Amino acid sequence: MTKSKRIALLTSGGDAPGMNAAIRGVVLACEKHDVQVYGYLQGYNGLIDDNYCLLTSDDVAQIVHLGGTILKSARCPQMCDDDGLKQAATNLMKSKIDALIVIGGDGSFNGLLALKRFWPGQMLGLPGTIDNDLDNTDYTIGFSTAINTALDAIDKIRDTAQAFDRVFAIELMGRHSGHLTFNTGIASGAEHIMSFENTNVSDTDKTLSELAQEINVIKQKRNRSYVIVVAENLWPGGVQTLATQLKQSHNIDCTVCVLGHIQRGGNPDAKDRVMATRMGVAAVQAVLLGETDKMVGEVNQEMVLVPLKTAIQQTKAVNSHLVEMQSTILKG
Amino acid sequence: MTKSKRIALLTSGGDAPGMNAAIRGVVLACEKHDVQVYGYLQGYNGLIDDNYCLLTSDDVAQIVHLGGTILKSARCPQMCDDDGLKQAATNLMKSKIDALIVIGGDGSFNGLLALKRFWPGQMLGLPGTIDNDLDNTDYTIGFSTAINTALDAIDKIRDTAQAFDRVFAIELMGRHSGHLTFNTGIASGAEHIMSFENTNVSDTDKTLSELAQEINVIKQKRNRSYVIVVAENLWPGGVQTLATQLKQSHNIDCTVCVLGHIQRGGNPDAKDRVMATRMGVAAVQAVLLGETDKMVGEVNQEMVLVPLKTAIQQTKAVNSHLVEMQSTILKG
Amino acid sequence: MTKSKRIALLTSGGDAPGMNAAIRGVVLACEKHDVQVYGYLQGYNGLIDDNYCLLTSDDVAQIVHLGGTILKSARCPQMCDDDGLKQAATNLMKSKIDALIVIGGDGSFNGLLALKRFWPGQMLGLPGTIDNDLDNTDYTIGFSTAINTALDAIDKIRDTAQAFDRVFAIELMGRHSGHLTFNTGIASGAEHIMSFENTNVSDTDKTLSELAQEINVIKQKRNRSYVIVVAENLWPGGVQTLATQLKQSHNIDCTVCVLGHIQRGGNPDAKDRVMATRMGVAAVQAVLLGETDKMVGEVNQEMVLVPLKTAIQQTKAVNSHLVEMQSTILKG
Amino acid sequence: MTKSKRIALLTSGGDAPGMNAAIRGVVLACEKHDVQVYGYLQGYNGLIDDNYCLLTSDDVAQIVHLGGTILKSARCPQMCDDDGLKQAATNLMKSKIDALIVIGGDGSFNGLLALKRFWPGQMLGLPGTIDNDLDNTDYTIGFSTAINTALDAIDKIRDTAQAFDRVFAIELMGRHSGHLTFNTGIASGAEHIMSFENTNVSDTDKTLSELAQEINVIKQKRNRSYVIVVAENLWPGGVQTLATQLKQSHNIDCTVCVLGHIQRGGNPDAKDRVMATRMGVAAVQAVLLGETDKMVGEVNQEMVLVPLKTAIQQTKAVNSHLVEMQSTILKG
Repeated sequence: MTKSKRIALLTSGGDAPGMNAAIRGVVLACEKHDVQVYGYLQGYNGLIDDNYCLLTSDDVAQIVHLGGTILKSARCPQMCDDDGLKQAATNLMKSKIDALIVIGGDGSFNGLLALKRFWPGQMLGLPGTIDNDLDNTDYTIGFSTAINTALDAIDKIRDTAQAFDRVFAIELMGRHSGHLTFNTGIASGAEHIMSFENTNVSDTDKTLSELAQEINVIKQKRNRSYVIVVAENLWPGGVQTLATQLKQSHNIDCTVCVLGHIQRGGNPDAKDRVMATRMGVAAVQAVLLGETDKMVGEVNQEMVLVPLKTAIQQTKAVNSHLVEMQSTILKG
Repeated sequence: MTKSKRIALLTSGGDAPGMNAAIRGVVLACEKHDVQVYGYLQGYNGLIDDNYCLLTSDDVAQIVHLGGTILKSARCPQMCDDDGLKQAATNLMKSKIDALIVIGGDGSFNGLLALKRFWPGQMLGLPGTIDNDLDNTDYTIGFSTAINTALDAIDKIRDTAQAFDRVFAIELMGRHSGHLTFNTGIASGAEHIMSFENTNVSDTDKTLSELAQEINVIKQKRNRSYVIVVAENLWPGGVQTLATQLKQSHNIDCTVCVLGHIQRGGNPDAKDRVMATRMGVAAVQAVLLGETDKMVGEVNQEMVLVPLKTAIQQTKAVNSHLVEMQSTILKG
Repeated sequence: MTKSKRIALLTSGGDAPGMNAAIRGVVLACEKHDVQVYGYLQGYNGLIDDNYCLLTSDDVAQIVHLGGTILKSARCPQMCDDDGLKQAATNLMKSKIDALIVIGGDGSFNGLLALKRFWPGQMLGLPGTIDNDLDNTDYTIGFSTAINTALDAIDKIRDTAQAFDRVFAIELMGRHSGHLTFNTGIASGAEHIMSFENTNVSDTDKTLSELAQEINVIKQKRNRSYVIVVAENLWPGGVQTLATQLKQSHNIDCTVCVLGHIQRGGNPDAKDRVMATRMGVAAVQAVLLGETDKMVGEVNQEMVLVPLKTAIQQTKAVNSHLVEMQSTILKG
Repeated sequence: MTKSKRIALLTSGGDAPGMNAAIRGVVLACEKHDVQVYGYLQGYNGLIDDNYCLLTSDDVAQIVHLGGTILKSARCPQMCDDDGLKQAATNLMKSKIDALIVIGGDGSFNGLLALKRFWPGQMLGLPGTIDNDLDNTDYTIGFSTAINTALDAIDKIRDTAQAFDRVFAIELMGRHSGHLTFNTGIASGAEHIMSFENTNVSDTDKTLSELAQEINVIKQKRNRSYVIVVAENLWPGGVQTLATQLKQSHNIDCTVCVLGHIQRGGNPDAKDRVMATRMGVAAVQAVLLGETDKMVGEVNQEMVLVPLKTAIQQTKAVNSHLVEMQSTILKG
């Protein structure tokens, strides 16, 4: 029995919890609409190497709760030159693919736009990144889970910090945006948040002095723990350098933790599973409606379609009320 | 040193994860604005019995992550008659309270409106209930955590269901609304969701027959697990009766789980902590702006003020796209 | 390439977290020793129906952390009559199986002993049950995880109990032994533990009166929460009847929770994974040494072999020092 | 009402989950036996500064589940010279303390033995360290929880490792012993464990070559993830250097994670709570029996008393069967 339409699906860029839920959403929606899903493996490499498997509802019956991605992901340098792009286009055409759905971040969407020069099919993107740095969607797949994972880690560290009345500096992921840092910082009751939105790194001496002063004020009032959460890629030399400087310039002991890759994995939370499922279904519906070059986003709890170009044009800003609340009410 | 203003704070109704984060938000905001917080204990009983403690930032320094409520909660039948209300009003006036902030559900807000007849101070409500059944706010405090707790439980049950290819019927909380059931059901990949929004209980025989037929279709295609999530207060006789009927009328074995009170407790997740913190801070800012008879809500990630009466006028509906997606794409 | 030996493997009885780790241990050990593993599906039904798959290290590469059992489990009434047993024996002989390893509880081991009358191969059992009710092994696979799952649930319920100063009665699994109840009760700081080892159910009125008195003593000293953990199959009518009786005879409000099947599932904890892995490996080594009719157990952190008959002869008693400590030091 | 006896209690050294359960055990046992508990704060500093609080059952009613230590901990250099020790002894005598119970690791026990020269009271130690490196006890308080915390982190990292078929090197705590590394490594199904018991660091080039060869063999057979767990203080330059060397000498990409302080905190698991409770109770009973200079240990699930000197004489070895199983059956 031949299907009426063929959709190619791949996951690309850093993995994010909820990608599997999105894959399941795509596959279930396709099955109801008589569409065949080609799952390409290891990101764009699957397109280049013509490495795919046909996906049915049986394949996705027990994956909604799994972290990672059953389609795997990988860097794909060949998508940066025309030869690679042509090869990908050739394979898509050979398999008579009507539409390509990519779950990933801005790099992945740039890949889609590049491929457009050589392949005329429909293209849809789903925002899959723990960084939440895509515009025109309230949330990206994996963001909510990553916050909760980081939060759980900081809750644990707080136990030790409290036992020793100690200063901790904890580095969070987020690439070049502060969504993860701000939300985790506020949720954990961190005494200080250092992120792109509120931290001057052009004069680190001044920033450091102000931080040291705040720590000393707190410590003089009452001995207690003090947790600083720091966005990766913010402080020159990273959180280890920050701690060394606090000791050398201000004689403040500061223990360092880099949470690292635990923030990417783990079973997705409910928010990520529900949203990813909806996005997967919405992407298929968009394909059937003839849409292309769009990202499926969630705005105010509803699915929306936005041009891929718009989504990656700029990094979405952290809610300014969060930033302000932190500095005026919650700090210290 | 006397404070410029006095705010009374209490938690009422069923406890919800994040109530402590809201308490902390209120107290920290008050401290910055030179307002004294009177924490009344055990819900409205504290007002009747004049049982309170003064709260400072030290009291809330390590509570943002705790489930339950440090101010405790309790039923308070005396708030249902005028004598009790007058007593509460007398105590508020005796302590020269300017404003009363109550964290709770619709019953708690009705208490506020009743008290209004005897006490002229400002009144603010924060939506604190795992049921998410208050209108004019996207989320209530505790809802997100309760979904994740229920989801974690269903993930565990799925292990056994898969091992035995068994049918499970799992009853979730939610009082008379299906928010918890729908979100948990979709996130868990439940094969069937039975909630107020999509289930006909006026003809249980017909509903049962359709369910049995769906189960049999699935089972014939391939032996596998089948999870039904059921909203409490929906099925006559509850989930145990549902299972008995499935066996008696359709010879389908169905194991029953009532998740119960585990859904109320536990450390709040990041969403509940951040939102509750914001709501606590926003309530204090509203008081300082002279607002009264309002609930602080969150709409599209921003704090809003809505009349208390509006918030409890009707139960917020479950997102209709979720309901539709479940029945057209995800079911079975 | 033919393997030197063939081992059949199945999981039977209630699933328990760690069964997959044991399966992996068996398969990895077999691969190193050039033994072919036949994984029979759905417990003894796989033997009856000759339903198996050949297992290699690739099949078990990513299962050590999974709850449930990839070989599935099921009741198998046919193992209770000679026809079924003969059928199983015939299939084992047809596939030239040298040894059969069964992961399960006492019912599963009785199946092994029954099969012995018709099949001459080697037989090894691994203790897989959350009840820890097998003798001659300190722990059974799944027990440690089940305690932690129940504990996590009670921690959550404690939040609500504390918020309302309420009495809760929580029913735990364990079949007819109190291992799960006692360990979870002590770990959770339960005010009262009702289990086979310490509770007189021949005179429920007297037991109830003593309990009521203890609750009242505590409540008079200071209002606070009171958690009772109750072993399933202990109290006539179960925990719901207990609560009704407390109300009717002693006017004590008591909220009920039955934790149910969440206690069976979930990712196994480290103890269960390490022990199950060791047991799986030890079972294969025992087969290669010509052992039969033995259960692999863990005693004082070392693997031991005990006759299957001995293991199921009597239910292992709960450590008497735990029982005594609870009644003399911890209660109330 | 004066108590018959006075026990001083403190926690010292690195905090470990379960210390609070031990504190509760001590206090509850003391209350039953009419003993007054003096809780000294911040480790031995409390003795030097005469900083203590009297502890009753109310103080420990809700702490059994908490990580960290309510008595706090801290380094105390003054315990290294006679003046400090004399000061501590003076304060103990001033308060007429009969016995001192210290929860901590080998450094803490050395403090006890040093204090012995100046103070004649009874001394008991409880093994509190996540490293499990004390002899004559099967487990130390916090060890079980730390394994599970590290395991949960590695499970998350495995999601990403699988998605990218990537090599990860993950550094675990444990000071100079491999208990944490071996148990976590086996439980997580790590392809390679590098610990003191099985790794030659005198010839790092050779060790590295062998590791690289193993990785390449696995990768040639089938593309997949490869997780290496590494004990802290093992590899010269740490896990970051290991990764750099793998790249430079063998062109193998290896991502690094240092789990760090998340391994110390978090709610204790059931094992740690039950054992810590028993140890706390046993310590009080030992004091009442006139015992001194002993550590309370757990051997084969029973409480034992061992001379403090013996406990710290040597580091307990990792179970040799675990080490052997890893190298012969599980590796790769």
